[in-house]
Amino acid sequence: MAKGPKKLDELFHDTLKDIYYAEKKILTALPKMAKAARNEELQAAFEKHEAETEEQVGRLEQVFEAIDQKPQGKKCPAIDGIIEEGQEIIKDYKGSPALDAGLLSAAQAVEHYEISRYGTLRTWAEELGLQDAVELLQTTLEEEEATDKALTKIAETVVNQEAQTEAA
Amino acid sequence: MAKGPKKLDELFHDTLKDIYYAEKKILTALPKMAKAARNEELQAAFEKHEAETEEQVGRLEQVFEAIDQKPQGKKCPAIDGIIEEGQEIIKDYKGSPALDAGLLSAAQAVEHYEISRYGTLRTWAEELGLQDAVELLQTTLEEEEATDKALTKIAETVVNQEAQTEAA
Repeated sequence: MAKGPKKLDELFHDTLKDIYYAEKKILTALPKMAKAARNEELQAAFEKHEAETEEQVGRLEQVFEAIDQKPQGKKCPAIDGIIEEGQEIIKDYKGSPALDAGLLSAAQAVEHYEISRYGTLRTWAEELGLQDAVELLQTTLEEEEATDKALTKIAETVVNQEAQTEAA
Repeated sequence: MAKGPKKLDELFHDTLKDIYYAEKKILTALPKMAKAARNEELQAAFEKHEAETEEQVGRLEQVFEAIDQKPQGKKCPAIDGIIEEGQEIIKDYKGSPALDAGLLSAAQAVEHYEISRYGTLRTWAEELGLQDAVELLQTTLEEEEATDKALTKIAETVVNQEAQTEAA
């Protein structure tokens, strides 16, 4: 490959490594979040999303294959920061009725990070003519959007219950 | 206030400090992103969003006022990480036809972080019966969603132009 300024294919590859690192990090965070959650529905949502995340990692590995690259992560300070905030919440709100609301906000920040990354990667894959990658990325993007919507729904219930606990 | 586990009003206040810090940090990043952008439409979008962000900071100050607190930031590792990734792109893709695509992806990660935070804060403000805060947060949430959509539109154009540059 000619040496010169980095091009879109390299940006695609760099960003793929970023989200691969992020998904692996999320896989280690989700069981801790499930364990910390008090609300059963929230706990179940975290467990379901852990199983989905494993499949998403598998899809990313197929995308690496589609561009003839080995699956490899690249430190992503964004997800590190987002997950660090979630861990702070688990620590600061332990035993609090607001813990689940805090866990939900952390999980939604994670989802939105992923939605932005998968949206970007899918647009680039289209431009690069990587049809298989487009489909794989689109499938995960839709899963992330569905997870975010499900969390919003739980958030409304949890926050309501929380308020009742406080009023009691 | 009785000392005990932290409650939803404190979680609201903590998260408000988080996004206040984030908005201020974004205000320092946007001019650098506008300066780095090659595409005029993208440059204009960053400049427009800088002006909007100033108003959003003002709205957050009104929310602090609504809960009788002084506006104050709290280090937010998530936005620090997201912005760090954007700065890496400016450095790594300087002079590359893919620079604008990279800037767009960084900006959309910022927008999605904000969308998740404002959505969460608005839900909590509703539950806490803070009607003025609900309206202020909703206004900003809609602005962020509109900015994200505008960036997606530019991304499609920029990435197309980029591909043509590469093919030339």
